[in-house]
Amino acid sequence: MDFFFKPQGIAVIGATPNPFKGGNAILKNLLAGFRGGIYPINPRYGEIEGLPCYPTVNEVPGLVDLAIVFVPGPQVPEAVAACADRRIPGVIIESGGFAETGDDGGSRQAALAAMARETGIRIWGPNCMGLVDAVNGHVFSFLDPRAFPSLIPGRVSLVVQSGMLSAGFLVDIMTHGVMGISKVCSVGNKIDVDECDLLPWLLDDQDTDVIGLYLESLLDGRRFLDICRRADKPIVVLKGGKSPKGAQAAMSHTASLAGDNRIIRGAFAQAGIVEAEDFKEMMDLCRTLSLFPAHRQERPGRIAILTFSGGAGIVSADFIAAHGLETAELSETTKRVIGRLFPEWMPVNNPVDLWPAMERHAAAEVDVINQSLTAAFADPQVDAVFIHAFVGNFRIRLDLEDVARQSRETGKPVFIWLLGRRDDAFQFQNEARRLGVPAYPELGRAVACMAAVLRKR
Amino acid sequence: MDFFFKPQGIAVIGATPNPFKGGNAILKNLLAGFRGGIYPINPRYGEIEGLPCYPTVNEVPGLVDLAIVFVPGPQVPEAVAACADRRIPGVIIESGGFAETGDDGGSRQAALAAMARETGIRIWGPNCMGLVDAVNGHVFSFLDPRAFPSLIPGRVSLVVQSGMLSAGFLVDIMTHGVMGISKVCSVGNKIDVDECDLLPWLLDDQDTDVIGLYLESLLDGRRFLDICRRADKPIVVLKGGKSPKGAQAAMSHTASLAGDNRIIRGAFAQAGIVEAEDFKEMMDLCRTLSLFPAHRQERPGRIAILTFSGGAGIVSADFIAAHGLETAELSETTKRVIGRLFPEWMPVNNPVDLWPAMERHAAAEVDVINQSLTAAFADPQVDAVFIHAFVGNFRIRLDLEDVARQSRETGKPVFIWLLGRRDDAFQFQNEARRLGVPAYPELGRAVACMAAVLRKR
Repeated sequence: MDFFFKPQGIAVIGATPNPFKGGNAILKNLLAGFRGGIYPINPRYGEIEGLPCYPTVNEVPGLVDLAIVFVPGPQVPEAVAACADRRIPGVIIESGGFAETGDDGGSRQAALAAMARETGIRIWGPNCMGLVDAVNGHVFSFLDPRAFPSLIPGRVSLVVQSGMLSAGFLVDIMTHGVMGISKVCSVGNKIDVDECDLLPWLLDDQDTDVIGLYLESLLDGRRFLDICRRADKPIVVLKGGKSPKGAQAAMSHTASLAGDNRIIRGAFAQAGIVEAEDFKEMMDLCRTLSLFPAHRQERPGRIAILTFSGGAGIVSADFIAAHGLETAELSETTKRVIGRLFPEWMPVNNPVDLWPAMERHAAAEVDVINQSLTAAFADPQVDAVFIHAFVGNFRIRLDLEDVARQSRETGKPVFIWLLGRRDDAFQFQNEARRLGVPAYPELGRAVACMAAVLRKR
Repeated sequence: MDFFFKPQGIAVIGATPNPFKGGNAILKNLLAGFRGGIYPINPRYGEIEGLPCYPTVNEVPGLVDLAIVFVPGPQVPEAVAACADRRIPGVIIESGGFAETGDDGGSRQAALAAMARETGIRIWGPNCMGLVDAVNGHVFSFLDPRAFPSLIPGRVSLVVQSGMLSAGFLVDIMTHGVMGISKVCSVGNKIDVDECDLLPWLLDDQDTDVIGLYLESLLDGRRFLDICRRADKPIVVLKGGKSPKGAQAAMSHTASLAGDNRIIRGAFAQAGIVEAEDFKEMMDLCRTLSLFPAHRQERPGRIAILTFSGGAGIVSADFIAAHGLETAELSETTKRVIGRLFPEWMPVNNPVDLWPAMERHAAAEVDVINQSLTAAFADPQVDAVFIHAFVGNFRIRLDLEDVARQSRETGKPVFIWLLGRRDDAFQFQNEARRLGVPAYPELGRAVACMAAVLRKR
């Protein structure tokens, strides 16, 4: 599988100078970050994007260990046959027009599958978006380079059975500063290479700590679950096609036959898979788990909640209970330390509502938040700290570097619910990402992610 | 109750020139937008913020029909007694230090409640953030004016038993361009004025189409439910303190005794209340319902899904089923119209995956999205349209004005799941808000809000 992820020379079958076509975007994306050989293939041109263009892969002079195919469906089998003839070990077929389109496409797809079996060539796709590797700057995909942001490298890799989704998602998540990415594998119809091939590779990948999968079908469920059960990295799955209408749409999207949802769900839980219901939730779960990969809980996590809002503290406690975690009973020491900061009338309880203490010390040089944080991190009855942060033109200042340091030194995960002015929140989100502190704009999502780390396991 | 919302003269008891204190912020907030008389009260100063300051309310020369009280808890009863003596009809007590702090505070609170009964003065609070009215530019609150954004007027009013929350929320939601607001009433300990006073007033308010409430307690549940049952505007409730720990925290926050959650939930549903679980969800439900206040469904809404991602279409269908809605069976006419745009091999089904059609017409002047939208809005088997939008430096362009027009003309609600580059998404979100088209960054949230409008009722 290394030729997919670390090829030395890539042929682009269906390359074109037309800037509105995917066959042009693939070339531009390769030119922007791939250091190996790049060989446009198209009998109609002698040169594209300044590169010599060849009529077929056979004419390419250099080493080619990967071909990206983006010609119309009916022309794909011939193109792949040419690759097999040349002993190219792998092809990524990004064109559509296969089993998802009905009978003709179905027989074309069957012919390709037979070719893979008979020649040993590995086929990724068809009907997919290919591969993005943000750590190495590789974009093996027809996605529009003008729509794409600068890649933020991260520790999460994805396997998705949806192309545009992976692309649109990366743009959204990276420009919002939410997270970086290691590899995104868009696998489409999965006629050969599927999650059971990619998962073991990603489980061994030194650039990957967590793997997220969007799947419309499980071709070999038993093998997949077996790989997950033995995995030493967290695996998050969003399963599409759980409803009858969704399953029907999955059939026409990637020709996937969905199984019984309740059975799948139970099997996922047994295999230690974290299940997501929505796309951004999957990303949030993945990035959270990538920050605390080694954390193990012997009992449901006991959370200290530091808030500037009594109401938000209460709803946090409700969510914590709903997710099977516990609102910590603070130790007497913690209560005494924090109590010194509070107005006399105010008892210290968890959730800790810091607002009256901040109001009391408004003009003084007492750092209520950071002193309370230190006490919470030090408390033996606390497994993790949940901070509510409001950012803006305001006097509440959270020392994020210190938060990250205390979390690291005590080994206790920390989570932030982030509210505030748009630009300040964006800056905070980026700083938090750089420091490895997870921040979320929704309270419920913050607790759901917390639960993925702090549930007993 | 009009003196709370439309006072002519306001006394600020506890006004101070110290810019770090709430008693200063209240004055600055009034000066920024309130057109009536403003009278600082504090025996230690002759003038504050350029206004003459009076030792007590008795000395104020002009008409005072509202007092905002922000002195320490123990001094509050005397201040309110002075207001009652002067026949001021209403006070908003924003100070803490009452039932939420234990015995002394409890007896102070009881004394205030007795004063309200005996003198007829209406008491709002204590332990609250007061009132924000974005339509009239009123901020009757100690919230920091430097932290506050320019107010965006809207059609949603809120009643919240949490002060900082309402404030932090407004900053977050308004600076992110998500929604405008009519009135936000932070009611704190509710010793006199409560949701049963405010709801009828807001139900009559011409500037309010939807009311959202964050409540930790229901003091008179039967009366509240009765008001909701007879209401002709949508009401959304987030109930804090549903878990034992949450209820315990509610006790110390606003001295609220929470009831049995299952009973409350059933009663809410019977009274036609839309229940929210999270804060931003409450805001999303409110803004959505404010856009389609007159919509009534005779049967579960049938949704046309227009997407650029097969995967997102499938997960949309799953969410639609989970929320009791239906993925529409498109009419033959619609299939024919959209089918002309599609590649030959591709059947038209709902969810409608527009990507292959967009790819096919990339260079041509065929507006795939807008032609498909027109067909979907015109389809008699479609009750509402769900559009997936990706914005950025990209060739997919959605004509939002036309979307708004078609939705208005056909009477069919429209919803957008919005992904894309941060700045483009922000611009889109603002334009959508101005045009009355709801857009959401999370797919599941979009469908949950859709369901609040399109469930059978």
